[in-house]
Amino acid sequence: MKVNGKNYTSIWVEDNNKVFIIDQRWLPHEFKIVELKTINDFSNAIKDMWVRGAPLIGVTTAFAFAKTMQLDSSNDMLNQTKSILLSTRPTAVNLHWAVKKMFNFLIKTPIDHRAHEVFKKANQILSDDIYSNRKIGEHGFKIIEDIANTKKTNSINILTHCNAGWLATVDWGTATSPIYFAKEKGIDVHVYVDETRPRNQGAQLTTWELFHNDISHNLIVDNAGGHLMQHKEIDLVIVGSDRTSSTGDVCNKIGTYLKALAAFDNNIPFYVALPSSTIDWNITDGIKEIPIEERDPKEVNFVQGKDKNNNIISVDIAPRGTKSRNPAFDVTPSRLVSGLITEHGICDANYNSIKKIKNFSEGNL
Amino acid sequence: MKVNGKNYTSIWVEDNNKVFIIDQRWLPHEFKIVELKTINDFSNAIKDMWVRGAPLIGVTTAFAFAKTMQLDSSNDMLNQTKSILLSTRPTAVNLHWAVKKMFNFLIKTPIDHRAHEVFKKANQILSDDIYSNRKIGEHGFKIIEDIANTKKTNSINILTHCNAGWLATVDWGTATSPIYFAKEKGIDVHVYVDETRPRNQGAQLTTWELFHNDISHNLIVDNAGGHLMQHKEIDLVIVGSDRTSSTGDVCNKIGTYLKALAAFDNNIPFYVALPSSTIDWNITDGIKEIPIEERDPKEVNFVQGKDKNNNIISVDIAPRGTKSRNPAFDVTPSRLVSGLITEHGICDANYNSIKKIKNFSEGNL
Repeated sequence: MKVNGKNYTSIWVEDNNKVFIIDQRWLPHEFKIVELKTINDFSNAIKDMWVRGAPLIGVTTAFAFAKTMQLDSSNDMLNQTKSILLSTRPTAVNLHWAVKKMFNFLIKTPIDHRAHEVFKKANQILSDDIYSNRKIGEHGFKIIEDIANTKKTNSINILTHCNAGWLATVDWGTATSPIYFAKEKGIDVHVYVDETRPRNQGAQLTTWELFHNDISHNLIVDNAGGHLMQHKEIDLVIVGSDRTSSTGDVCNKIGTYLKALAAFDNNIPFYVALPSSTIDWNITDGIKEIPIEERDPKEVNFVQGKDKNNNIISVDIAPRGTKSRNPAFDVTPSRLVSGLITEHGICDANYNSIKKIKNFSEGNL
Repeated sequence: MKVNGKNYTSIWVEDNNKVFIIDQRWLPHEFKIVELKTINDFSNAIKDMWVRGAPLIGVTTAFAFAKTMQLDSSNDMLNQTKSILLSTRPTAVNLHWAVKKMFNFLIKTPIDHRAHEVFKKANQILSDDIYSNRKIGEHGFKIIEDIANTKKTNSINILTHCNAGWLATVDWGTATSPIYFAKEKGIDVHVYVDETRPRNQGAQLTTWELFHNDISHNLIVDNAGGHLMQHKEIDLVIVGSDRTSSTGDVCNKIGTYLKALAAFDNNIPFYVALPSSTIDWNITDGIKEIPIEERDPKEVNFVQGKDKNNNIISVDIAPRGTKSRNPAFDVTPSRLVSGLITEHGICDANYNSIKKIKNFSEGNL
C-alpha cells in the first residue's frame, strides 16, 4: 500500500537477503525503516512490537530463521533460533505457527541446503500472506457491494476496531482489504476508526494507513460506536481476529465484543476478516477456552503521543500509583457474528460452515 | 468527601460570602482551590469546565447570582447575569434549571432584599444537593446489600463509567454515593473505573476520589468492561445521568450504552443513580428526542496528562490533521436499565414507575 505516494509492504527483502521492516512504534509521527540483521534484532522487533499483527509476526518469524540459517545452518542454531523466537510473545498464535512451519521444513532439509532454501521458504510465506489478504478483499467486497445495492447508495460507512490493516499483515490487511477493494471499484467508502485504547492502534496506525491511501475516515473514541450505530451512521462493521474457534467465537482486540453487541442491537452486519490459518480447530467454546493475556498495566496509565515540540513522549493520565487491569483481547460469541471473510470465501460463524472452509483450504472441496 | 484526609465539598462558602471551588481541570495531578468573585469568574468556571457535572453546574450557577446580586441587585444586573450564564454551556439541563430557579426567585424579591436573600437561596440549593445524594446512597446501598446477601459474599465488584462522583455534585456523588455508603456499612466494595475517553473523567477524577476515600479500585480502558462481565468479574454497574426521559431512557456520557448492552448480555444489574430533577418529563423517546452535543474534535486527537517533568501537557495521538467525530453523550434505552436510584427511592425504568417518584417529589404521595 502507499506511504507518501510510494508503494510499501510492512516487511520486504532487498538484494535477495536484506530484510527491512517499518518500525511501527513511531507511527504515525515518524516513518522509520529498519534493517533486521541478527536474531537479536528479530527477537526485539517482535517482543517490543516494532512489528505487530498476527500475520506480520508470522512472516517476520520466518525471516528470522532465514537470516540465522544463512550465517550458521547447524541444528544447534536452528534449535536456538526456535527457542529465542518462542520466548518473544508466548501467546501469539501465528508466531507458533511460523516457528513450527519453518522448523519442520528446515529440520528435514540437509544442512548444506538450508541457507539456500530458507529464503525461498520465507518468501513463499510472505507471498501467501499477500495473496490471502487480496482474496479476503475480493470476497469481502461483495458484502459492501450488496449493502450498496440494497440501500441504493454509493456511500458506505464502515466501522473498524484496532488495526487489522496492511501494517498488521504484509500488504492489504484483513479487515481493511475489502475497504481498499471497494474503493478501487468506485464505491465511496467512509471508515469510522476506533482509537482502540490502550495502545491506540486505530488512532496511530489505521488512520495513518487510510490517510496515505486516500480513504475518507473519522477517528472516534471507543465509546462512540454504539451511538453512531443507533443513529444509522454505520452500515457495516469489519474487524480482524487473533484467533477464532471452530465454532465461530472470535478472539480479537479488547473492545470488539462491545461493538458486536451494538451492531447486533441495531441490526448492522458484523463481519470478521481473517486468514483461515487463524481458525483454531482445538477450541469449541471461545469464551471458556481462549486464555486472555493481561498486559502491562502501564499501557492503561500512560498514553503515547507527540508533544508541541514534536517529541514522542508518554503522559500519565491517572493519579500516580493507580492500579489498572489490562486484558488485551476479548471473545465475541458466534451468535453476534454475521460471518467470517476468509481467503477461501465467506462462511457463517458456526462449525459446519467453517468446516467447509477448512476442507477448501485442505483441497478437499 | 476526603482529600488528603481532610473533608471537602466541590464548592463551598467561607465568611458567609466567599465562594470557593476545586478547579477540576488539573486533577488528579494538582489540587487547586480557586475563589470565584466576579460573573466572569463564574462564567469561565462553567464554560471551561473548572467545574463540571450536572448538579455542580446547577449549584455554581446559583452562587453566580448570589455574588452578582451582592454587588448590584438591579434588574439590569439580574438579566445580564441570566444571559451570561445561559451562554456558557447551552445544552446543560441543570444550568437552565438553576438559572430559572434563581431568576424566578429574585425577580419576585424586592430589590433591596435581594442581596440578603440570594445567599440563603443558593445555600439552600447546595444543601438540597448534599441531602439528595446522601439519600441516593442510602437507597442504592440496598441493591449492593441484596447482591451481597444473594451471592453470600462481602466482596462486591462494581463498574462505573465517567465521573458521577462527589466532584460532579457538591458531596457524595450520585453513582458513587451507594458505594461510599456500602463501604461505611462494612461491605468490601471494589470499583472498576472506565477511563472514559475522550476527556478521561474516570481516569482523572473518579480514581482520584476513590483513592482519597480509601475505596479499592482498578482503572480500566473503556474497551475492557465487556470482557470482565463475561468472566463474572463485575456484580453490578452503576452510572449517573445527564438527562433521563419520562420513560426511562438514559442520556449519559458517551459509551454508557455499550456497557448497558454488555451488562444485559451477561445478566448483570445495570442501575442509574440520579436526582429526580434530572428526569425530563417532556421526553418520551430518548434516542429520537434528546439532541446529542458534538464537542470539539480536539478532545479526541489530544490526550492530557503529566509528563516525566511533572508538567501537565497534551499530546497528539493521531496523524496531525486527522478529522474526528466527538459525540459527547449517548442514550441507553430503558429496556437495558434495571432501575433508577433517586433520592426518593428506586424505581423501574418505565413511565408508571417513574411517575410515582414524581408524585413523591411533588408531595402527592
